[in-house]
Amino acid sequence: MRSVNIGICGLGTVGAGVYKVLDRNSTHINSRANCDLVISQIGARRDNPNCDTADTAVTRDIFGVAKNPEIDIVVELIGGTDTAFELVMLAIENGKHVVTANKALIAKHGMEIFAAAESRGVMVAYEAAVAGGIPIIKALREGLAANRVNWLAGIINGTTNFILSEMDSKGREFADVLVEAQEKGYAEADPTFDVEGIDAAHKLVIMASLAFGMPLSLDGIFTDGITKLEPQDVVYARELGYAVKHLGIARQTEQGVELRVHPTLVPESCMISGVNDVSNAVMVNADAVGTTLYYGPGAGSEPTASSVIADIVDVARSINADASGWVPALGCNADMLQQQKIMAIEDIDTSFYIRFAALDKSGVLSTITKVMADAGISIEAIIQREQPVGEDYVNVIILTNVTREKLLDAAVEGIEQLDTVRGDVTFIRVEHLDQ
Amino acid sequence: MRSVNIGICGLGTVGAGVYKVLDRNSTHINSRANCDLVISQIGARRDNPNCDTADTAVTRDIFGVAKNPEIDIVVELIGGTDTAFELVMLAIENGKHVVTANKALIAKHGMEIFAAAESRGVMVAYEAAVAGGIPIIKALREGLAANRVNWLAGIINGTTNFILSEMDSKGREFADVLVEAQEKGYAEADPTFDVEGIDAAHKLVIMASLAFGMPLSLDGIFTDGITKLEPQDVVYARELGYAVKHLGIARQTEQGVELRVHPTLVPESCMISGVNDVSNAVMVNADAVGTTLYYGPGAGSEPTASSVIADIVDVARSINADASGWVPALGCNADMLQQQKIMAIEDIDTSFYIRFAALDKSGVLSTITKVMADAGISIEAIIQREQPVGEDYVNVIILTNVTREKLLDAAVEGIEQLDTVRGDVTFIRVEHLDQ
Repeated sequence: MRSVNIGICGLGTVGAGVYKVLDRNSTHINSRANCDLVISQIGARRDNPNCDTADTAVTRDIFGVAKNPEIDIVVELIGGTDTAFELVMLAIENGKHVVTANKALIAKHGMEIFAAAESRGVMVAYEAAVAGGIPIIKALREGLAANRVNWLAGIINGTTNFILSEMDSKGREFADVLVEAQEKGYAEADPTFDVEGIDAAHKLVIMASLAFGMPLSLDGIFTDGITKLEPQDVVYARELGYAVKHLGIARQTEQGVELRVHPTLVPESCMISGVNDVSNAVMVNADAVGTTLYYGPGAGSEPTASSVIADIVDVARSINADASGWVPALGCNADMLQQQKIMAIEDIDTSFYIRFAALDKSGVLSTITKVMADAGISIEAIIQREQPVGEDYVNVIILTNVTREKLLDAAVEGIEQLDTVRGDVTFIRVEHLDQ
Repeated sequence: MRSVNIGICGLGTVGAGVYKVLDRNSTHINSRANCDLVISQIGARRDNPNCDTADTAVTRDIFGVAKNPEIDIVVELIGGTDTAFELVMLAIENGKHVVTANKALIAKHGMEIFAAAESRGVMVAYEAAVAGGIPIIKALREGLAANRVNWLAGIINGTTNFILSEMDSKGREFADVLVEAQEKGYAEADPTFDVEGIDAAHKLVIMASLAFGMPLSLDGIFTDGITKLEPQDVVYARELGYAVKHLGIARQTEQGVELRVHPTLVPESCMISGVNDVSNAVMVNADAVGTTLYYGPGAGSEPTASSVIADIVDVARSINADASGWVPALGCNADMLQQQKIMAIEDIDTSFYIRFAALDKSGVLSTITKVMADAGISIEAIIQREQPVGEDYVNVIILTNVTREKLLDAAVEGIEQLDTVRGDVTFIRVEHLDQ
C-alpha cells in the first residue's frame, strides 16, 4: 500500500486522541483509507504526559511541520485563530492538505482558507469543527445533497448543555453549575466562549453555510448566552411541557436567513429536548427528506479524534485516487455560493415565553392581556402562580402564539410600564421544531 | 458544466420521488454534483399517474436502459431480487454505475454485484437501501471510519414501528393495527417481509457488513417478527419503564458477531425508545466516538429519493473527478473483508422480560425463583399482577439480569413444567444500549 504522511500540530486533548486512535485502530483505518497512514511528525509546544508518542519525531516548531516536504496532510489542532490561520495558510502554500477541528478558524477565515486551498489544489476538511464526533458536516454536505434545507437547530455546545441539564434536573443556579463544569474540565477557566454562545455561533455559521450555500460569515448572527437564565424559568418551562435548551438555529425564509443562538423552550415531545449533559444533537429539516436528527458526543478527546480521522481518511482516499474534483469544502464550488440577507432578530417570527411579577389583584391580568392584544400578539396560555414573590406580587407566565419579535419587544415595554408590574419582563424564545 | 446521464428503472413511489426532486431542486443538486444531471431515459412497465415525466423518454424495456450507450448511471428502483439482479448485472456489464434502493438485492447478491462492479471499474451505491432518508451508510462507511464498531441497534422498519407505536399508545391488538397500516399504505398486502423482520434482517446485514468489515451474508441471522406480540406485554413493559421496539441488533463479541432482529424492551431513558410511527433510527456504539444516533424517515417517496440522489451526486462527482479510487461499496477493498462467526441465538448474553400465568397462592413465587436460580439466572425484578387471569391465576412478570439465552431456555422449560404454572411462558429480550 502507498503511504500518506501526516503531521499533527497540537498535542492537547484532541491531538492526543488522534494519535492514540490512529495507533490503536491502524489496521482498520488503513483498510478504510486504502493506504498506510503514517504520523511522520508532531509539532507541539510541549509534550503531553497522557500521550506516549513513541518514536514519532516531535518538533517545537509547528511551522516546520507545515513546511516539511515529506508531509501530505497537516492536522491543525492548536486552536485559536491567529497562529492557526498562519499555520494553515503556510501548509496550503506548501501544497499540504489540511484537516482541522477549529470552528473559530473556519467560521472567521474559512472563505480565505478555502480559496487558497482551491487555487493550490489541496483539500481542507473540518468535520470535527462542529458537534465533535457526529458526522454532521458529511451529512449536510453529501448525505442531504438532494435537499433544500428549510431549517436546522442544534445543541452544539456541550458545556452549556451540561449546565442547562443540571439546572433542569436539580434546580441548580447557573453560577453554581459553572464551577462544577470547570472542575470537571467541561468548561474553560474563562468560559465566555461557551456560555455566551460564541462557540455555538461559530458552529452555526458553518452549518448554515453548508445548508444554504452561503459564504461563511459571522456578520449579522444574533447570539445570546445562558448566563442570565434563572432556575425558576427552567422549572416553569417544565410545568408547561418544555425543556430549556441552548440552540443554534438557522432558517431559510423568504425574507432572508435567520441565524441565531439563544436559550429556547423546546416541547418535551421533540427528540432534541431529551439530549442532556455534554451530548450534542442537530435537527435538520429539508424539503425532500423531512426531519432528520444526528446525535452524539459533542466534544472530548476520542470523539473529536473520530471526526478528525474520518477527514484524514477522506483526504487520503482522494490523494490516492488522483482525484481532480473532490467534494468542495462547502459542498459546491465557491462561485455557486450566494450571499443572503441575514435577518435582524426583531424581524424573526417565533413564539415566546414571558415571565414577570404582577400585583395579585383583580383586573391586573386583563390589563396585561390588553397590552398584548394592542401589540398584536395572541396568547396561547397564561398562568398566574399562587406563591407570592415579595408582598402582594405573583409571577405571571405567558406563552404567546407565533409573533414578530419587534411586536413582542413593544409588548414587553408596555408591560414593564404598568403600575401593577414590578421589575423587568423575562422572555425566552420558543421553537416547536415540528415543520 | 459536463452532463451526466441518468436512467431510472422503476417509476413507483420511489422512482417518482427521484424524478420530482431531481426536477424541483436541479440547480441546487447540479451545484453539488458539479455537473448537469440529466434524466435521459426512464424504464417502467407502466406510467405513474402521480408523476408527469414530461419530455423524458420512457421505455417499457428496462433492460434497454441498462444497455443504452448514452447512460452513465442506472438507478434501479424496481425492487425484488430476480429481475433487479439481472438488470444491475447487465448495467455493470455495460459499464454503467449503479444506484439502488434495494436492500434485499444488496443483502443477498451484494458480494457478487460489488465484485462485478469492481472488475468493470464502476460504482454501486445503495444509501437508500437502509433507513430511507437517513444517511446511515455514509455515516458508517465514512463518518465513523476511525472506529471499531462495538454494536449497532436500529429501528429499521417503519411498518413494524408504526404498528408497535399504535399498540403502545392506544393498547391496540397487532392484527387490528396491521389492517390500518395496510389501508394507510404503510404495509403491503402481504406484510410478511415487514412484520416477520425479513426486511429488517436485510438492512441489518448491510449495516453489520459495513460496521464489522464482513462479507454480506444472510446466513446465521436470527429473525423474529412482531406478529405474536400481545398488547399486555407492551403495557407491562411501560409499567416497568421500557418501550417495546422491533430492533435489528449487531454486536461484535469475542465469541463472534451477534446478528438478530426481534422485539426488544428498551429503557425509556434511551433516546431510541422515543422513536415512533414510521420513523427509523440507528444507534451506533464505537470505540473512539462512543454512541451516536441517526434519526429520520425510514421510507416514503421523497425521503428515499433524498438518499438515492445523494448517491447519484456522489457517483457523478467521481465520474467528473476521473477518480480511480473511490470509496469501495463496503468501505474497504473486498480482500480486506473478513468472514466472522455469526453466533447462534442461544449463545448470546442479554436480559429478558418473562411473563406467565401462575397459581395465586403462597409458595408459588419461591418455586419459580428456585427454577431461575437453578438455571443460573439472577432476577432483577419480579412482579405479580393483582388482576386474576382466569380463575386463581395471576400474571407473573420477571426481569432478569444479563444471562446466556440457553440458560433462559432451560429456565423457561422448567417453569412451563410446574404444576402451578399454566400455558406457555412469553419472553422478550431486553437491551439497555448504554455501553
